[in-house]
Amino acid sequence: METIPLQRKVLSENDRIAAGLRERLQARGILCLNLISSPGSGKTSLLEQTLAQLPPELRPAVLTGDIQTENDANRLKRFCPRVQQITTGGACHLDARMVETALAAWPLGEIDLLLIENVGNLVCPASYDLGEAAKLVLLSVTEGEDKPLKYPSIFFKAELLIINKIDLLPYVPFDLAKAEENATKVHPGVEIIRTSCTTRAGLDEWLQWLQRRMQAARQNLGNTAAGAAG
Amino acid sequence: METIPLQRKVLSENDRIAAGLRERLQARGILCLNLISSPGSGKTSLLEQTLAQLPPELRPAVLTGDIQTENDANRLKRFCPRVQQITTGGACHLDARMVETALAAWPLGEIDLLLIENVGNLVCPASYDLGEAAKLVLLSVTEGEDKPLKYPSIFFKAELLIINKIDLLPYVPFDLAKAEENATKVHPGVEIIRTSCTTRAGLDEWLQWLQRRMQAARQNLGNTAAGAAG
Repeated sequence: METIPLQRKVLSENDRIAAGLRERLQARGILCLNLISSPGSGKTSLLEQTLAQLPPELRPAVLTGDIQTENDANRLKRFCPRVQQITTGGACHLDARMVETALAAWPLGEIDLLLIENVGNLVCPASYDLGEAAKLVLLSVTEGEDKPLKYPSIFFKAELLIINKIDLLPYVPFDLAKAEENATKVHPGVEIIRTSCTTRAGLDEWLQWLQRRMQAARQNLGNTAAGAAG
Repeated sequence: METIPLQRKVLSENDRIAAGLRERLQARGILCLNLISSPGSGKTSLLEQTLAQLPPELRPAVLTGDIQTENDANRLKRFCPRVQQITTGGACHLDARMVETALAAWPLGEIDLLLIENVGNLVCPASYDLGEAAKLVLLSVTEGEDKPLKYPSIFFKAELLIINKIDLLPYVPFDLAKAEENATKVHPGVEIIRTSCTTRAGLDEWLQWLQRRMQAARQNLGNTAAGAAG
């Protein structure tokens, strides 16, 4: 009996769409970030703070994934005219086709930064490329410092770990140094920023990271154009 | 071209194993509970407190699921001789076959209560029957009161909602009444217990719930035996 490698085929289809998306976004110098965390780690709050503090000349767009409700999109629309909710209707992650379909509604020439808030889930979203330049993982201090070891895939794949809700550190048994040590065990050299959306601690550092990455995206675009012209 | 309903077939296989497990457990009067929540909502802490406070004549057993690490089993073994870690190696949920395989290591006649701690994930575990008598969902107050609306499947399927970490209520913007209203919208009549594993608030109520359910499991066994004898 012949065995059909279905899983590989499904993943490849996603990878193919994601690669096309990445190429289109890079060709326009758009930085695309894929934010992943457990439910309630503060992805939407971080996006609210980010959108409120971005320089006015920047043109962000946000796709926010949830199984049900438009709550997150409604929260974010107060800060940004380009926000779309992707309601998966049961699926535990966003995939590249959902992103491609949603993006068709916007002229890409009017976007500098595409922020994708994935479904709240520390497991499945790690396996689906959305065409992003980088995955980011959020971990709130209420979740425990063992999470990088227990959910290694996303901590390995994320370029940046944001340890959020540090204002709650006095009230929870969370060992910050141990959490960072665990993350570094899984992903040596991973960048780490500590934030609180309540006290705004660490948000400047996060915004600087974001600006550096946006500059790099535009720089790459310049190099590619120069290369093509040369 | 013929379409093969693969998803239905896979689910049916799980359901078939789960039904067999449920029958075996019920036939021995063993109460089996399936605990589901986001990562870091406090499933392991609640189990630690529960195992420490159960009457000594009760014989509990625990299966604890994680993608990687034996951390949770090591924590729980301090309180209970029968603990097994199920390491899924990437899978985002436990399934009935994993439970069946793990249970083969124990004589069921020596168990009164089987507690299954699922992988930390508010989405996928809701879709997999493990042969349990009831699903329980934990929601910590740091996660936000909107979660029942955003992840309705597990809140609809769970018989009991445990709102955990209520000791943190003074420090987080969590509207307890709204959370309970949201849960009740998704699942009218759902039972709700508020707990803190730090202050031990609500743990008596939880242990009483557990004892009532265990009595009911034994009562059903008595009825079945009487029916069979009659």
